Amino acid sequence: MYVKVEAFFPENIKIALKNEPPGAWMPVLPEGCIRLSSGYPDASLVPTMEIKAAVARLLDEEQDLPLHYLGSPRMDKLKALIQNRMQERSMPVAAEELMITAGACQAIDLIARIFLDEQAVVVVEAPTYMEALEIFQNYTKQVISVPIDEEGLQTDRLEAILQERKNAGLPLPRLLYTIPTFHNPTGTTLSLERRKHLIALSVEYDFVILEDDAYGELAFDQNHLSLKAIDKDGHVLYVGSLSKVVAPGMRVGWIAGASEFISALNWFKKDLDHPFAQSTMAAYLETINLDERLIQLKEVYRHKCKTLIGALEKHLPENVSWYIPKGGYFVWVRIPGVDTATLLTQALAEGVSFIPGKFFYQDDQNGTEYLRLSYSFATENDIVDGVKKLGKII
Amino acid sequence: MYVKVEAFFPENIKIALKNEPPGAWMPVLPEGCIRLSSGYPDASLVPTMEIKAAVARLLDEEQDLPLHYLGSPRMDKLKALIQNRMQERSMPVAAEELMITAGACQAIDLIARIFLDEQAVVVVEAPTYMEALEIFQNYTKQVISVPIDEEGLQTDRLEAILQERKNAGLPLPRLLYTIPTFHNPTGTTLSLERRKHLIALSVEYDFVILEDDAYGELAFDQNHLSLKAIDKDGHVLYVGSLSKVVAPGMRVGWIAGASEFISALNWFKKDLDHPFAQSTMAAYLETINLDERLIQLKEVYRHKCKTLIGALEKHLPENVSWYIPKGGYFVWVRIPGVDTATLLTQALAEGVSFIPGKFFYQDDQNGTEYLRLSYSFATENDIVDGVKKLGKII
Repeated sequence: MYVKVEAFFPENIKIALKNEPPGAWMPVLPEGCIRLSSGYPDASLVPTMEIKAAVARLLDEEQDLPLHYLGSPRMDKLKALIQNRMQERSMPVAAEELMITAGACQAIDLIARIFLDEQAVVVVEAPTYMEALEIFQNYTKQVISVPIDEEGLQTDRLEAILQERKNAGLPLPRLLYTIPTFHNPTGTTLSLERRKHLIALSVEYDFVILEDDAYGELAFDQNHLSLKAIDKDGHVLYVGSLSKVVAPGMRVGWIAGASEFISALNWFKKDLDHPFAQSTMAAYLETINLDERLIQLKEVYRHKCKTLIGALEKHLPENVSWYIPKGGYFVWVRIPGVDTATLLTQALAEGVSFIPGKFFYQDDQNGTEYLRLSYSFATENDIVDGVKKLGKII
Repeated sequence: MYVKVEAFFPENIKIALKNEPPGAWMPVLPEGCIRLSSGYPDASLVPTMEIKAAVARLLDEEQDLPLHYLGSPRMDKLKALIQNRMQERSMPVAAEELMITAGACQAIDLIARIFLDEQAVVVVEAPTYMEALEIFQNYTKQVISVPIDEEGLQTDRLEAILQERKNAGLPLPRLLYTIPTFHNPTGTTLSLERRKHLIALSVEYDFVILEDDAYGELAFDQNHLSLKAIDKDGHVLYVGSLSKVVAPGMRVGWIAGASEFISALNWFKKDLDHPFAQSTMAAYLETINLDERLIQLKEVYRHKCKTLIGALEKHLPENVSWYIPKGGYFVWVRIPGVDTATLLTQALAEGVSFIPGKFFYQDDQNGTEYLRLSYSFATENDIVDGVKKLGKII
């Protein structure tokens, strides 16, 4: 057997393999652990029986069609349903401006694939979604991190960096990755002013914005205009997902953007689509009122978020701080003077999990005082108990 | 809107985008067309109602678990079921030597991703599976085609090419792609002697064999020992698939090989797996006797193959020739002096489809007298009618 398999790999792959292994951020959970680490939907909101019914109806009506490579009319229907939804959210797209993907992660990887190589510069938020960071670092070491505050990405800092690089003759970014609405991990939302500023910068410096909107439908009060809805120049590649709104195990997401980009992405999407999963999703969606479902989801998550914040106020020391999210799944907590990676070991022993902040930064020397809590999956009781346990060990 | 989106892309992507668009080989079928082009399973063999029942049982038993990112015990069970099957087929693999993929295509793309860049040389059979060719050409222009005869890949020709390249100081291949058993598109099977020769060459010249075994379970009479079963040095990455044995729309395949390779592949598989599809597949497989199912499949395909060959003998001119397959889905037909791309236009007008031979070659000046017929999807009556139509227009 080979010992040094690397001999077979191209240089860029060898470099990528020196990164942390994928999923290093994922804690190994002891049995019965309260999962404040998991960005999973609430179990009671996963439409298990509706999906069972959707499969039964789909296969009764279409027989073997959804089980072949192509042929289920519901694969086109899924596209049409997503186009309708995009239209309702002020993002009308033609069929050739839309590609269905296996969730947001495949979408991000595909976009990275066509934009990034070792020469390419990519901008991310600091902190940012750890899976996206893993993906980008597979392609390039030239990752620029721009900090976030309570209004999201600091676009003035971004502008200063772009200006400096331009003046210094350094390569400018091709791609900027952002989660402007109910950000993972911080829960923050980019202000409208900054949204406009970011779009203006994308035009001035000619980079593409990868807008990850996985949480955008989960607003506790007001909805936010996406970057894609504001953009008039085709500088935004929008990534949507049904993982947080329906169920992640279905693996249905999409990319919406200029047809030239969608066409190029199509060269590299080599999983031959997912007829069974996609047509099941269409069969499910056609039976429900998504707006009504979203009202229910938002109500549950709003309440769970309030419960978590209340527990943090009650059970954690005075010097601990957080942003109050206006939607989504996460609360970003700062515990001054505490190394949250060390804290995690103790927390797991006590039976509660979270994700240490360092995993959301390119340089894991950052974010050591932070942690991400998710209120989406754990029950209300577990949220309170989990925070109590955290309070005890801090 | 952008006109020249290419400005954003790395050089390797720009080069790939100059290839033919993906799926250019796929004919646009008029309504009611007899599909001798489609490598789909027979509709009557797709276990539609069994999969419906499997989903119902899965969701009744596991509730929301298969609809999250992780958590369904049946995802591990699918791996165990595939490990059992591999063992039965003389290819025992440990869990860390196995990766579930979204079908064989994602598997091939992932392997290409870690082995190939513009500097890399890859060997393919001529002709070969058009989707694999599309994939490799996304990574490198250095594709060496080695011809096939009735005993499969001509390993003596391969050896001569390797020897020549070595003598000339040219780069040697890192990867060789082969479908040794019931080859797509030719239906041929690599002889045992050549299998051993190929393995010996992989050791001598230190390349990895990507063995695509999508059709290996569909032997009309005797089974064949896979390259992976013969290999003792970890030079084979085996790709299996349930597309031809269960249903392609489920998108379940796998890669088996040295754990070091599987670990490296894991860095780049960014679709976060497919919990619903994979656990449904496990729930289906656990209720059936796969050996019994295979007996039924082989019987149907053996008969349909015989029907096609009989029709070819009866309805096509004397000078037309083909290999007689011993399993799988395809017959490779040579029509001397006829350009099968032109023939296809007429055939579609008559209501029958096939895939012109040129799409299975790196250089589409080759294979122009050949075409691929599939007996898997069309009914027996349609197979005969389709061949009659072909006979009429040739």
